[in-house]
Amino acid sequence: MATAPARHRVVIIGGGFGGLNACRKLKRANVSVTLIDRRNFHLFQPLLYQVATGGLSPANIATPIRGILKRQRNAEVLLGEVVGIDAENRRVLLTDGEVGYDTLIVAAGTTTSYFGNDHWEAVAPGLKCLEEATEIRRRVLLAFETAERLSDELARKDAPESVREEIARWLTFVVVGGGPTGVELAGAIAELGRGTLRNDFRRIDTTQTRVYLVEGSDRVLSVYPPKLCEKAHKALERLGVTIRTGCLVTDIQPTQVTIAHRQPDGTKTEEVIATHNTFWAAGVRASPLGKVIAEATGAQTDRMGRIVVGPDCSIPGHPEIFVIGDLANYNTGTPEQPKPLPGLAPVAIQQGRYVAKVIQRRLERRTTPPFQYFDKGTMATIGRGQAVAQMGRLHLSGVIAWLAWLFVHLMYLVSFYNRLLVLFQWGWSYITRNRSARLITGEHILPNTDEVAHDAGRNVAADAAAKPAETS
Amino acid sequence: MATAPARHRVVIIGGGFGGLNACRKLKRANVSVTLIDRRNFHLFQPLLYQVATGGLSPANIATPIRGILKRQRNAEVLLGEVVGIDAENRRVLLTDGEVGYDTLIVAAGTTTSYFGNDHWEAVAPGLKCLEEATEIRRRVLLAFETAERLSDELARKDAPESVREEIARWLTFVVVGGGPTGVELAGAIAELGRGTLRNDFRRIDTTQTRVYLVEGSDRVLSVYPPKLCEKAHKALERLGVTIRTGCLVTDIQPTQVTIAHRQPDGTKTEEVIATHNTFWAAGVRASPLGKVIAEATGAQTDRMGRIVVGPDCSIPGHPEIFVIGDLANYNTGTPEQPKPLPGLAPVAIQQGRYVAKVIQRRLERRTTPPFQYFDKGTMATIGRGQAVAQMGRLHLSGVIAWLAWLFVHLMYLVSFYNRLLVLFQWGWSYITRNRSARLITGEHILPNTDEVAHDAGRNVAADAAAKPAETS
Repeated sequence: MATAPARHRVVIIGGGFGGLNACRKLKRANVSVTLIDRRNFHLFQPLLYQVATGGLSPANIATPIRGILKRQRNAEVLLGEVVGIDAENRRVLLTDGEVGYDTLIVAAGTTTSYFGNDHWEAVAPGLKCLEEATEIRRRVLLAFETAERLSDELARKDAPESVREEIARWLTFVVVGGGPTGVELAGAIAELGRGTLRNDFRRIDTTQTRVYLVEGSDRVLSVYPPKLCEKAHKALERLGVTIRTGCLVTDIQPTQVTIAHRQPDGTKTEEVIATHNTFWAAGVRASPLGKVIAEATGAQTDRMGRIVVGPDCSIPGHPEIFVIGDLANYNTGTPEQPKPLPGLAPVAIQQGRYVAKVIQRRLERRTTPPFQYFDKGTMATIGRGQAVAQMGRLHLSGVIAWLAWLFVHLMYLVSFYNRLLVLFQWGWSYITRNRSARLITGEHILPNTDEVAHDAGRNVAADAAAKPAETS
Repeated sequence: MATAPARHRVVIIGGGFGGLNACRKLKRANVSVTLIDRRNFHLFQPLLYQVATGGLSPANIATPIRGILKRQRNAEVLLGEVVGIDAENRRVLLTDGEVGYDTLIVAAGTTTSYFGNDHWEAVAPGLKCLEEATEIRRRVLLAFETAERLSDELARKDAPESVREEIARWLTFVVVGGGPTGVELAGAIAELGRGTLRNDFRRIDTTQTRVYLVEGSDRVLSVYPPKLCEKAHKALERLGVTIRTGCLVTDIQPTQVTIAHRQPDGTKTEEVIATHNTFWAAGVRASPLGKVIAEATGAQTDRMGRIVVGPDCSIPGHPEIFVIGDLANYNTGTPEQPKPLPGLAPVAIQQGRYVAKVIQRRLERRTTPPFQYFDKGTMATIGRGQAVAQMGRLHLSGVIAWLAWLFVHLMYLVSFYNRLLVLFQWGWSYITRNRSARLITGEHILPNTDEVAHDAGRNVAADAAAKPAETS
């Protein structure tokens, strides 16, 4: 009995926008596809900040990869961790086995970068995965709870002044990084305090919540045209966000953040912000897999650790290995003046579809012109009815940009089901200003009043509550 | 300046059905209410099994308590852990402070009981909180993933027989306890394998998933009329659930469960079920707080640790302390033949409202007749279109019982918003058989193939996938 000739084997590392679109575009190709991911779901990262602020549930922005591909018979999903590749023998190495390939697509994305200060991670979590989003949610909600508990102490005559400072520290939030993620997170935390939680507490006034946004360059959303940056800046300030541009974070402690202001004369002044709540949205670097692949193939990497790819998104000297999405440095400038494509979902999607086409055409012994990015523009939301958008020469802000943002983000959600679910929840919270997923879950779910609560005999809550409440 | 007279202080421990209903019923009373809970949300426990099987998101069945009470000006919420009470001085003791009361309502509920085998907890998690639900979800989904990964090995000629056994172990699920939670969880896991995941995997056949339901008494749902038990039994078997009644679990190991069959002649035979996936729904006992309160007040406790209360739900000798809901033993029988009310949401709700009334009438110096439970019946769902319900003398099964179950459970969800959200998701999964919240989150999110994966040189996934797939 003769066996059928083995089909061309395509292995894709990563089930994000790049990997998933490459895989789906290969649906009708005469290849077998194996998509490897560490997680069993495709995550829509641009909406992570809404999970972090209780607006959406994790499952609303995460879709099981097996579900997405279940009708694509030439594709299979492998839940596993890639630790390297054997480029010579064309094998992907996993922690527990290996997978042979004829063509490899690497779409492993990026991870949070603390610019060499990795010890800041424990104090100032980033926002790249669901676990980080629910961790930020836990910290934000517990901060308000802790402030409320500490406010009991103020009812006592001999309450030390440190209690008041401690409360202010819990009600101060610092977001580091003025890109879209930082702007969206800062805006959402401000809205949480000013709107959603306004009537939830009896002692603290959540509308007094202070949110700082710290940005190293001289404006927020610096890749946008200056006019839009200015509009975003003003919209954030209207929400109560205090913006510090031209400021670098020099130290993060559990109780404070130190930032250095660059003065026009070149000198620097220091500012210390007292806070228990610092979140990091300042930078990304290539997945550690980038380095491993570069070493195995002799590929070049850039300052962020991204792999420099050729005009067809493959690694020079290795036409059988493509690198796409955030992990790739695709230069649209000149060798002297490089201008790599930005780390945006549309880039990853278009590159994924492109390399799928290249693979199919190669099997037909045809060549393909170089990859061309079609820039659909970018957008960021600031808050209720506030966003900025740039689409070619069209610059939008305010409600129109916000509606465009809603529409585009709904459309990018992979499943139709989640589109409906998210639309319903957005509609509801627009009307009620509610964010229903305000759950404190995981470990450490109780207020952290240890630092001030040395006095076991103090007399809290109910006594103060016994005062007539009508006056409040 | 004269201060207003201090209002009567009511402290409620626990924001479940009992505590929350007591609190809301006191809305117009001239009292100040402090509701203390360890969690910041009210949890709808009857639907936890749907979170555990990926049908609903945690936030769909959990509502922030502050949100529920934000318009009730005489109530405040305190997030904290109660460790005891000082009954003499009428104070509730927290880990970090204390709260004085005039009237105390204890509604701390129950916790999972392993009947003295607490070491089983790590191997066989219970289903009482959101973290346990997402942990069971993680284990169930990872079991299928691990079986799929191990199936790669079978493609090799020299694959040891142990691999096949190992795969079967991962595809076998044991649910201990044949009450409503156990029945619903077993039914949902069976449906996951037979329906939702049917086309998700390429190597394993998830319709071959084996689910065992182990029950100590001689029938499942033993509090229901025998005819309904029989119908539930048959419906479970149609779903592919293997039922073992009259069986006690004698040992749980990570790789197997040992059960003892009671034979009609009084002897016992042993059965060992090889499985990596055991879940515990066999029993509950009173919250540890019950013991603390009993010791502080001299109250009696029953075998399950519940506090025996008087006709008005208060502790004998302590009219100012009420115990309600699952934590209370309210005897509707005689002292000789006790017949305590069951641990059901309607009991807790009615007792909560009742004690609120007692408190108000006492302030008006009026007495209140003893608590009377109005039995609205009970119901349990088995699977798609299958449920049993008992309402007085009305016994329902099949689709009608299922529709009644849907309606009642939707109505018991505290927020209108979650009602709509859950209704939408149920409708969608009824049509598509999809369960969209199939996320593997937390730690240990990769398949556990260690035990068999000693051979680093094996060649998996893509090679096997390269065979023509059209035949499958």
